[in-house]
Amino acid sequence: MKKIALINGANLNRLGVREPEIYGSETLKDVECSVQKLAAELGVQLECFQSNIEGEIINKIADFADAKFDGAIINPGAFTHTSVALRDAIAGSGIRFVEVHISNIHKREEFRHHSLTAAVCAAQICGMGTEGYLAALRFLAK
Amino acid sequence: MKKIALINGANLNRLGVREPEIYGSETLKDVECSVQKLAAELGVQLECFQSNIEGEIINKIADFADAKFDGAIINPGAFTHTSVALRDAIAGSGIRFVEVHISNIHKREEFRHHSLTAAVCAAQICGMGTEGYLAALRFLAK
Amino acid sequence: MKKIALINGANLNRLGVREPEIYGSETLKDVECSVQKLAAELGVQLECFQSNIEGEIINKIADFADAKFDGAIINPGAFTHTSVALRDAIAGSGIRFVEVHISNIHKREEFRHHSLTAAVCAAQICGMGTEGYLAALRFLAK
Amino acid sequence: MKKIALINGANLNRLGVREPEIYGSETLKDVECSVQKLAAELGVQLECFQSNIEGEIINKIADFADAKFDGAIINPGAFTHTSVALRDAIAGSGIRFVEVHISNIHKREEFRHHSLTAAVCAAQICGMGTEGYLAALRFLAK
Amino acid sequence: MKKIALINGANLNRLGVREPEIYGSETLKDVECSVQKLAAELGVQLECFQSNIEGEIINKIADFADAKFDGAIINPGAFTHTSVALRDAIAGSGIRFVEVHISNIHKREEFRHHSLTAAVCAAQICGMGTEGYLAALRFLAK
Amino acid sequence: MKKIALINGANLNRLGVREPEIYGSETLKDVECSVQKLAAELGVQLECFQSNIEGEIINKIADFADAKFDGAIINPGAFTHTSVALRDAIAGSGIRFVEVHISNIHKREEFRHHSLTAAVCAAQICGMGTEGYLAALRFLAK
Amino acid sequence: MKKIALINGANLNRLGVREPEIYGSETLKDVECSVQKLAAELGVQLECFQSNIEGEIINKIADFADAKFDGAIINPGAFTHTSVALRDAIAGSGIRFVEVHISNIHKREEFRHHSLTAAVCAAQICGMGTEGYLAALRFLAK
Amino acid sequence: MKKIALINGANLNRLGVREPEIYGSETLKDVECSVQKLAAELGVQLECFQSNIEGEIINKIADFADAKFDGAIINPGAFTHTSVALRDAIAGSGIRFVEVHISNIHKREEFRHHSLTAAVCAAQICGMGTEGYLAALRFLAK
Amino acid sequence: MKKIALINGANLNRLGVREPEIYGSETLKDVECSVQKLAAELGVQLECFQSNIEGEIINKIADFADAKFDGAIINPGAFTHTSVALRDAIAGSGIRFVEVHISNIHKREEFRHHSLTAAVCAAQICGMGTEGYLAALRFLAK
Amino acid sequence: MKKIALINGANLNRLGVREPEIYGSETLKDVECSVQKLAAELGVQLECFQSNIEGEIINKIADFADAKFDGAIINPGAFTHTSVALRDAIAGSGIRFVEVHISNIHKREEFRHHSLTAAVCAAQICGMGTEGYLAALRFLAK
Amino acid sequence: MKKIALINGANLNRLGVREPEIYGSETLKDVECSVQKLAAELGVQLECFQSNIEGEIINKIADFADAKFDGAIINPGAFTHTSVALRDAIAGSGIRFVEVHISNIHKREEFRHHSLTAAVCAAQICGMGTEGYLAALRFLAK
Amino acid sequence: MKKIALINGANLNRLGVREPEIYGSETLKDVECSVQKLAAELGVQLECFQSNIEGEIINKIADFADAKFDGAIINPGAFTHTSVALRDAIAGSGIRFVEVHISNIHKREEFRHHSLTAAVCAAQICGMGTEGYLAALRFLAK
Repeated sequence: MKKIALINGANLNRLGVREPEIYGSETLKDVECSVQKLAAELGVQLECFQSNIEGEIINKIADFADAKFDGAIINPGAFTHTSVALRDAIAGSGIRFVEVHISNIHKREEFRHHSLTAAVCAAQICGMGTEGYLAALRFLAK
Repeated sequence: MKKIALINGANLNRLGVREPEIYGSETLKDVECSVQKLAAELGVQLECFQSNIEGEIINKIADFADAKFDGAIINPGAFTHTSVALRDAIAGSGIRFVEVHISNIHKREEFRHHSLTAAVCAAQICGMGTEGYLAALRFLAK
Repeated sequence: MKKIALINGANLNRLGVREPEIYGSETLKDVECSVQKLAAELGVQLECFQSNIEGEIINKIADFADAKFDGAIINPGAFTHTSVALRDAIAGSGIRFVEVHISNIHKREEFRHHSLTAAVCAAQICGMGTEGYLAALRFLAK
Repeated sequence: MKKIALINGANLNRLGVREPEIYGSETLKDVECSVQKLAAELGVQLECFQSNIEGEIINKIADFADAKFDGAIINPGAFTHTSVALRDAIAGSGIRFVEVHISNIHKREEFRHHSLTAAVCAAQICGMGTEGYLAALRFLAK
Repeated sequence: MKKIALINGANLNRLGVREPEIYGSETLKDVECSVQKLAAELGVQLECFQSNIEGEIINKIADFADAKFDGAIINPGAFTHTSVALRDAIAGSGIRFVEVHISNIHKREEFRHHSLTAAVCAAQICGMGTEGYLAALRFLAK
Repeated sequence: MKKIALINGANLNRLGVREPEIYGSETLKDVECSVQKLAAELGVQLECFQSNIEGEIINKIADFADAKFDGAIINPGAFTHTSVALRDAIAGSGIRFVEVHISNIHKREEFRHHSLTAAVCAAQICGMGTEGYLAALRFLAK
Repeated sequence: MKKIALINGANLNRLGVREPEIYGSETLKDVECSVQKLAAELGVQLECFQSNIEGEIINKIADFADAKFDGAIINPGAFTHTSVALRDAIAGSGIRFVEVHISNIHKREEFRHHSLTAAVCAAQICGMGTEGYLAALRFLAK
Repeated sequence: MKKIALINGANLNRLGVREPEIYGSETLKDVECSVQKLAAELGVQLECFQSNIEGEIINKIADFADAKFDGAIINPGAFTHTSVALRDAIAGSGIRFVEVHISNIHKREEFRHHSLTAAVCAAQICGMGTEGYLAALRFLAK
Repeated sequence: MKKIALINGANLNRLGVREPEIYGSETLKDVECSVQKLAAELGVQLECFQSNIEGEIINKIADFADAKFDGAIINPGAFTHTSVALRDAIAGSGIRFVEVHISNIHKREEFRHHSLTAAVCAAQICGMGTEGYLAALRFLAK
Repeated sequence: MKKIALINGANLNRLGVREPEIYGSETLKDVECSVQKLAAELGVQLECFQSNIEGEIINKIADFADAKFDGAIINPGAFTHTSVALRDAIAGSGIRFVEVHISNIHKREEFRHHSLTAAVCAAQICGMGTEGYLAALRFLAK
Repeated sequence: MKKIALINGANLNRLGVREPEIYGSETLKDVECSVQKLAAELGVQLECFQSNIEGEIINKIADFADAKFDGAIINPGAFTHTSVALRDAIAGSGIRFVEVHISNIHKREEFRHHSLTAAVCAAQICGMGTEGYLAALRFLAK
Repeated sequence: MKKIALINGANLNRLGVREPEIYGSETLKDVECSVQKLAAELGVQLECFQSNIEGEIINKIADFADAKFDGAIINPGAFTHTSVALRDAIAGSGIRFVEVHISNIHKREEFRHHSLTAAVCAAQICGMGTEGYLAALRFLAK
């Protein structure tokens, strides 16, 4: 049975609370439930994690690597654009990552167009709302 | 019944022939068949189009707009990075677009990291191979 | 009798259909009629052409050059910002060009502020709506 | 009856004297006469102003704003490329401006290609010689 | 009664210890006391917080948002120049922020001239020493 | 008794008239009155000056320097972003300056984010509306 | 017997007509004849092609690839500097290309100094006039 | 007896696990042992610390400063390239730092060539593998 | 008898008062006397002018042009780096200019390294203190 | 009889020794022999020169200029990208130069894509291996 | 027995004479003696070389390569930042290089932060004074 | 008696031969004679030196420094724009330098506008032809 992680970064605990016109009204709990439900259908084991602290995410990725996870879905939030440390953690984990953004980052401020982490992920999805997480899971589950 | 277009741009007629180490060994015909099959399952009408001539794609998008298409999946190929005209055609069509790239453009040359067209699409998917087309269709079909 | 061409580029066949809040509600046909009417008043022979295919416009400019046209009004649309080939065609034609933009390109995205073709035209007009075409014709007719 | 201003900026008092190979041999007085003549034909009240002092032009624009002018033709000369203060004065005046340049600024030094003021004007004309002023007046008079 | 937060970021716990020639000899405790004293005078409830960990500040801002704080004074320290995550937390909090810097950041290294967070704050004060905090409080208390 | 100057630059004579959605509805006279009132309370002598002509402000700063002013509040308006001459005048005056902007310049066009003059002032305040002038006066009066 | 293509791009049909001071007075037909003559001497089969439409050149390169051509001489004209699609077509063709420019592109406008296509060709020749085509053929024929 | 700290930043707990082709197969424990052994030989007291959380490192540096450490060896990992806060902590500590990188950062991605922290350290060593730590200790021990 | 102008721009009326460590202790009057004295020796007629108002200098240059001056020495002060209008006035005057800076502008802030006006002058001298004016006069007097 | 020089710059004495996977296994002597042989066939006098010292090449070019050479083939090696002095020497020699690079510089590091010297040569050839020298000689011999 | 070279570039013959506040008071002879002494201890054969002429260093590196040196310590001085030719010589030598700078180049002018040669060396040390040479020798001697 | 050096760099031995339309028809010998003559008048000892080899100039500057020269006039030619090594030699010599350019470098290619060496000289003169050398000598002789 495949083991897949769902990692959410900076401010994503505020989903459904913060700026719903950009990120929608689903809470992070809602999203994690939907992804868990699909994981069950696909026969995949899913573990969820969120933190606003970059280093805690790096620690967790190391744990997932030690636990031999097969894949990981990550929405690093704002760390996408600033964290070389997260990029290194992903690159060094040996896990297959898919980067997901709820909004279309290309429609927003210019400093959000570039992702430091995408180059070390297998794929990137943005603008599909929270369905992006499901599409990522389907891709990793194959 | 929803009407959705599948548009492939520059050099994508060479899929499965050109550089399979980057783009895989499926041909464009294979891909179009898979997407048609999923469209049938989802109860969606799908029309496929490919051209290496930027202006022909623009003409076709105008036709799709006149025919009141609901959505479109587009892999502009190299036009992604150079065509303001294609961007304008998408923006002016009133159709909901999802941009798809087979490879992860963020792992390739720097000039492929930026998309001129993504900002006028609803969503962008890259790096999921030809499964990206299917994920895009599922998203548009909802 | 002077011979003058009216050339419209990418997406201008969608005038009056596409984004009327930017480009107004007149169709391309309407515009061509107005310009023809003024041409008649000024005693000038006018030939109109539109294409979304950059190379067809280049071919047509060569035809106009061979036919010894005196002037040309061109709205290259998005080709303004990306086409060195069009710039070369204009520069090599020996015809006096006026570049026209319906909207004020300086109020739009930054990549629309620069024109590759303006430097090889005699003049440039932007932001005067479709009256820009008439002002260009008056200028060339003298 | 519409009230329209004709404003000329830095060094334009030297028209016809300074570098005639670029700017032609008409003097500023000649130009103002031609524009006045057309204004009379169009039933428009025209007031002319020239200064080499940026702040005097800003003062005058405030006066025109208080006097409820409907439109203004401005050739800021070199202030086009350096004056944020003039841009603010135009933006804050509530008057509809058309920016005119006698020469084609896109054929000259690169620092002349960009206009700070064009983005707050309705339209911009360049390269039509002093006929640009007349075209601007016709546009504003409608 | 208005609720206002005072948030200090990276290295501000070292105030009065670290580089007194730039930041003065008052300690953070001294500063917090002064601001508390003024808050009492102004009839405002003040809560102070400091952390060197970006994510802890983000967590705290979320708490302040849940507790319906009216305003917040923030000196993000070096996070000013690097943290998109903090910017997002501020923007998503619904709280009115004033950014304060003790030194004049425009006199220091060029990378300190730009603030990522100022654009999502209501106001910014720099160079007024620790009086900047008091001025910010007076502004928010109105 | 301390002598302090209040200097307003380009277009600030239009305060309350020009774009009130950005700058508020108080006139410059209103603002000068408020600052005079606070100056009286603080036992400070205040002299006000406004000009749209950069060189007149430079002349006035030289006068203030000769008259041994202790401090100056300056809102250079658009000269903030373009005037090296004003920067030199401030730097050479020996007077302690505080730069004030009514709006938050970091929320506006990118060319307004950088100040040429801030580096030669003691402090900078922006986004606090016309209260910024009062905060600056309190700071200089100490 | 080796099969080699000679491909000319944008505006090269105008050779000998357009700007002879830059490109010389030979027509494209003249050039193709000279190259054919040398091909005959070298025992090489040569096929010539010209188009102003970028996508037609891409289509033709695919045809040459299917027909197992050994080499190709290409003068993309202005497409050199703008066409990622052409670059991809060359890279994906498996054919050995030599890029030729009649004029020395390093003596012309700065935007002509960089070639998008040269990096996927084996070699590049510029400034040797139409003899560049012959040198390229000799190189490929070996 | 001199007190020296050995600080390792982001992802360096993964040494010997993560990408051994870049960083070698020694673990962090191995490295710390080697450095401790040399410290003993040189009669220096050494304290080791590692964290993936930027703010924890900043806290620790403050502790080392309070404990009057004489020197510190730091490999900030990816924080080298992104952390102004770490730079400030080093600059404000009064401790003499040597920055060490195991790999030659100049052979890797361009964004790794620049160090934000090196300018506030006494020295920098890169590319000498884990021997860099020993060289740094020898330098600081003198 | 040759007619030569000596023009000083922004803040140069403060010479000897403002920042003597950069500009020396001679006043502008002292400098003008020295230059007048040398002019007398060289049999040259000299007229001096200073203004802090850019447009007044432009007006004066026009006067000098009308009066058929042979040469001009100009120290534009800060206008050197910002005034395209002054550049145009110099270029259009038909007078031979030498640009002089008292300090070595290459040792100061980077924005002072570039001169907008030097390209339209015959020569430039900097760093020779007020002797630069004399050297310029000797050059123009020949 | 035409006199032509063959000049090789930095590190080209190591040809066949240094990095043969980039530059091939022919030595410089081999190359000079081949070119001499072709020179004999073409009835041209050839003189060869190599130096790793930029100034010696400049001295030699001056000698060739004094000796009225008709043409020169130059492979400046790394001086191509850094030597303005060499550029000036070529420009000032009155000799017709062809610049040759053995490898395709457009496939290598970005700093090798630009040539300082190409703009003052008649032509440039790269990527044809040592045959580039022969093609250059044929061109110059005509 | 290992053979190692010690190469010093531009201006390093002036060590101890030139700017001792940056480079210390040891002469180059002193430094070479220290390194020779350590070489003797480590059982390594050391050869020293210094030149201010870039090409002579390149020649010497070729000699060292022919003599099968195992390693080289190089302080290129200012050539570090400008010499592609030196970079090529190092890369082509097959010798393992360590780059040493006496001062911390990251504390100096920005153009000294980047090294053209570091990317082709195994390691780089800066800021350790002349001890850097010794650390480099220890590293190469293993 | 003051000792002053006159140093000419790259290609200046070709003065009067190379491009006389830029540099005039005087030879270097002519120039050195004129400067010697003035030196005699001013009671100054002058030594002249020219080399096309950057390192030889550096060596010579060291010699001048050892011989306690008081001043030096340098025209580095193209080394002005590329030689950090020359800059370091000047900065380290303790000699007062004046940089001279015969032509106005601000009227030429953009890469000639910036001087690497000017910032370490006392003064810079350009555009005064060979009179610039004399003006420099007069300045240094005082």
